[in-house]
Amino acid sequence: MTIIRKKTGNFLEDFRVGQVFRHKRGKTITAGLFNAFSEFTMTTNPLSKNARYARAYGFRDLVVPAGLVMNVAFSQTVEDISENARANLEYIGMRFGACVSIGDTIEVETTILGVKPSSKDLDRGVVHVRSTGRNQDGAVVIRFERKVQVWKNDPAARVDDGEAAGTAVDCSLELPAYDERRDYRSLAHLSAADGYFEDLNPGETIEHSRGRTITTEHIALTAQLDNTSQVHCNQFLIDQNPTKYIGGRLIVYGGIAFNVFLGLSSPDVGENSLGDVEYKTGRHSGPVFAGDTLFATTEIRGKRAYPSRPDLGIVDTILRGFKPAKKGDDWERVEVFYLERAIALKRRTHYT
Amino acid sequence: MTIIRKKTGNFLEDFRVGQVFRHKRGKTITAGLFNAFSEFTMTTNPLSKNARYARAYGFRDLVVPAGLVMNVAFSQTVEDISENARANLEYIGMRFGACVSIGDTIEVETTILGVKPSSKDLDRGVVHVRSTGRNQDGAVVIRFERKVQVWKNDPAARVDDGEAAGTAVDCSLELPAYDERRDYRSLAHLSAADGYFEDLNPGETIEHSRGRTITTEHIALTAQLDNTSQVHCNQFLIDQNPTKYIGGRLIVYGGIAFNVFLGLSSPDVGENSLGDVEYKTGRHSGPVFAGDTLFATTEIRGKRAYPSRPDLGIVDTILRGFKPAKKGDDWERVEVFYLERAIALKRRTHYT
Amino acid sequence: MTIIRKKTGNFLEDFRVGQVFRHKRGKTITAGLFNAFSEFTMTTNPLSKNARYARAYGFRDLVVPAGLVMNVAFSQTVEDISENARANLEYIGMRFGACVSIGDTIEVETTILGVKPSSKDLDRGVVHVRSTGRNQDGAVVIRFERKVQVWKNDPAARVDDGEAAGTAVDCSLELPAYDERRDYRSLAHLSAADGYFEDLNPGETIEHSRGRTITTEHIALTAQLDNTSQVHCNQFLIDQNPTKYIGGRLIVYGGIAFNVFLGLSSPDVGENSLGDVEYKTGRHSGPVFAGDTLFATTEIRGKRAYPSRPDLGIVDTILRGFKPAKKGDDWERVEVFYLERAIALKRRTHYT
Repeated sequence: MTIIRKKTGNFLEDFRVGQVFRHKRGKTITAGLFNAFSEFTMTTNPLSKNARYARAYGFRDLVVPAGLVMNVAFSQTVEDISENARANLEYIGMRFGACVSIGDTIEVETTILGVKPSSKDLDRGVVHVRSTGRNQDGAVVIRFERKVQVWKNDPAARVDDGEAAGTAVDCSLELPAYDERRDYRSLAHLSAADGYFEDLNPGETIEHSRGRTITTEHIALTAQLDNTSQVHCNQFLIDQNPTKYIGGRLIVYGGIAFNVFLGLSSPDVGENSLGDVEYKTGRHSGPVFAGDTLFATTEIRGKRAYPSRPDLGIVDTILRGFKPAKKGDDWERVEVFYLERAIALKRRTHYT
Repeated sequence: MTIIRKKTGNFLEDFRVGQVFRHKRGKTITAGLFNAFSEFTMTTNPLSKNARYARAYGFRDLVVPAGLVMNVAFSQTVEDISENARANLEYIGMRFGACVSIGDTIEVETTILGVKPSSKDLDRGVVHVRSTGRNQDGAVVIRFERKVQVWKNDPAARVDDGEAAGTAVDCSLELPAYDERRDYRSLAHLSAADGYFEDLNPGETIEHSRGRTITTEHIALTAQLDNTSQVHCNQFLIDQNPTKYIGGRLIVYGGIAFNVFLGLSSPDVGENSLGDVEYKTGRHSGPVFAGDTLFATTEIRGKRAYPSRPDLGIVDTILRGFKPAKKGDDWERVEVFYLERAIALKRRTHYT
Repeated sequence: MTIIRKKTGNFLEDFRVGQVFRHKRGKTITAGLFNAFSEFTMTTNPLSKNARYARAYGFRDLVVPAGLVMNVAFSQTVEDISENARANLEYIGMRFGACVSIGDTIEVETTILGVKPSSKDLDRGVVHVRSTGRNQDGAVVIRFERKVQVWKNDPAARVDDGEAAGTAVDCSLELPAYDERRDYRSLAHLSAADGYFEDLNPGETIEHSRGRTITTEHIALTAQLDNTSQVHCNQFLIDQNPTKYIGGRLIVYGGIAFNVFLGLSSPDVGENSLGDVEYKTGRHSGPVFAGDTLFATTEIRGKRAYPSRPDLGIVDTILRGFKPAKKGDDWERVEVFYLERAIALKRRTHYT
């Protein structure tokens, strides 16, 4: 009897600068996935809650929120890019394009922009990639770069050290036009009265009032996203070598925490949004485990016009995610997430 | 840097008799939400299980059960009415109207019927409200009153003490007509042989045979309903001040327990029902926590004709929910839920 | 007051050889159920992930995987056949027929093929049944036999000891024809490059690389399948008499473990499959509990032509499921599942 153990995923020495991965499977966003994700985070934007409202705004159907689009696209890249990662270091320039509705299918490809062995640890290094997600009609729905710290399989193996920017496809938020004949005002009671462009002031930080405790549900949610990384769902792997793994426990997949923080911020900065424009940079600064309660704040950094859309403005924010941790007899707030986030917000003048 | 902490929800002194809230967001019942809720309770009515059956009866598609309609409507009122509640005291006169199918959107408004400060506790009082839920075509799908005990923000604040009945909109169960040309009999094997109008006898109490253990799943389910009350999902809030909260633990949202008890009763009294007509009064008489196993009984109180529908009858029942609790070395049965429930049941003469 | 406690399910003495049960309810496979099940197991076949891909292959929509078809059909038989079972002993000759898509309704009937009291234990015996599941158009989608050890209600009751083969309906995998005009090759990057018919060699055993930890989610999943057996969801029942129940804990419904093992094997043997042809025999050789991490292997036993389909071949395999168990300071691998499984695999020559 021959025993076959297949290699899963790539190691640092397997990547080549300029290499393109067309990821397997793709994923159709069913009403089931939509429910599990858009709601488990308490997202409050009626575009993702109320089909009557979404259609009245000119969308085809309920709008799949940015956090779910990101998760569906990101997860498709895990097997090829980060199944053997030690840590996801940074999200860079994540931009959203065509609107995604229930029933749409997202397929993703990734270009290797750079490979860099660690100067001090022989067993690891950093891969820099750009991923692009398209829908079933070929329209770009998301584009992002990320840097990942990846293990080497053989510490002595040669690494294709290098960097090449490559050419990114265009990716800008596509929104239904503002149409004077639509009766937006008759729908205004369905979203918060105070989360418009005019209401947010640079220099202010909003402490979002709600928290959310994460349970072992994170395991099933990670599987529903097709994220195959074992550190999120294989307790036996952890138990055999607990000191190797952060906290000696199953770690919550970063995309799930990402999604929860977006949801916690939603009543204050997302409810009158037509979409997220860009996440310039972002990172997970600490681990999240089952049992943690998550909180978020949004710092308003600046405001600017939305090109060719007098009904909208762009608000530049920093979304921070926290969890409380015991320090002696007290609790302290530990930052676990940081995201520079530009949001397309409705102007009160045009919608109320 | 200015720190903004927004007030969430209203306190006793914020309510005015006669005031109307048009609640935010609304909610489309997706196939995902339907699956999570109609099935997690083991509902057994084929109208909510089998689309072929539902269509053969003249319904448009799978029927959203009363418990989910109630939960979707109720949860929309939480932020405005009961986010700062100490307890939901009573459901009153909950009636169902137009049939709800997957894809329908429910939006809710609430009128304040009464505000009454507590005579002995300065920091709280009772708000009496009537809520009405409509679908995307404006048809009423549910109407109910409830009384909620709400905290005051400032114990010294003046309260708009008073009561005014207001005018309730009409709300009666809308059902497909009985049609001799439909072959109901060929479908009769798909529901219980013994749960027809003729089978239920006043004076009898049915001990429903199944139980269901609640897990931490309740947190995600509550979020899927958009219920924003923090006592169901924010463990940190509880940990900081456990004596303030019942049991010192996250409490299961009452609507979830409500839904489970309806489900447990389904094989005996709900499987040959065309719908629930009215919940005259109801209350949660004890808390439910993760780990509890729930049971239910139905007491048959009376039977009457269904106006203009010789194929149907109305059975007046009391649905009681229980959980076992340790008392010394023994278990005792603690009542945690009480609901006066009128059910529209098929007559065996017309359907078998 | 009269207290009514209804009998639920049948006992050994209730079954008659030749008896036919047309099971209650039926079940429509909603997008919600599809999401919960096809994804929680990390199924990787793009036919069940990517609607663009499934349609390009000639399927109507996303394909409901065999494991979910099996679970939906099997669960419908539980109340009549195995609600009072001690153990499900064996699956026999499970075959798949018409393709099942989201929105299809499955209804099931079961014939009693044999009843056999135990020769040494007076309180139990074995029932041998054949179940057939059909869709809303009457097409057979699944057919299987199983042997179940069932309790007697009255150890002294007479049993209808006997066996009669009966006549099984035809059930063979129905697949879209291979069509030269379809551009299968442009889709080849969406599935594994190495799981084709040509890649699997008799004599090899593949150790599937991933594991999956089961949580209390199993309770809700079992309810979503309408499996009414109390040993999966009623903790109070167990607590009152823990020595009666295996492990003294809620046991994970076998169909859920079955589904997970199929999912774990998917990247290596299921990703380039057009369907499962037959499960000749199968059994649960050990219990699974919340907290267990599951693993799987596939032994390749033989290969053969697929009648009239030069683009396909059939691979005969044995799928084994394992969980690690502590033995002193070490872990040992305990087999908990065994399935003889014939898979219809694409030939590389025709699809890449």
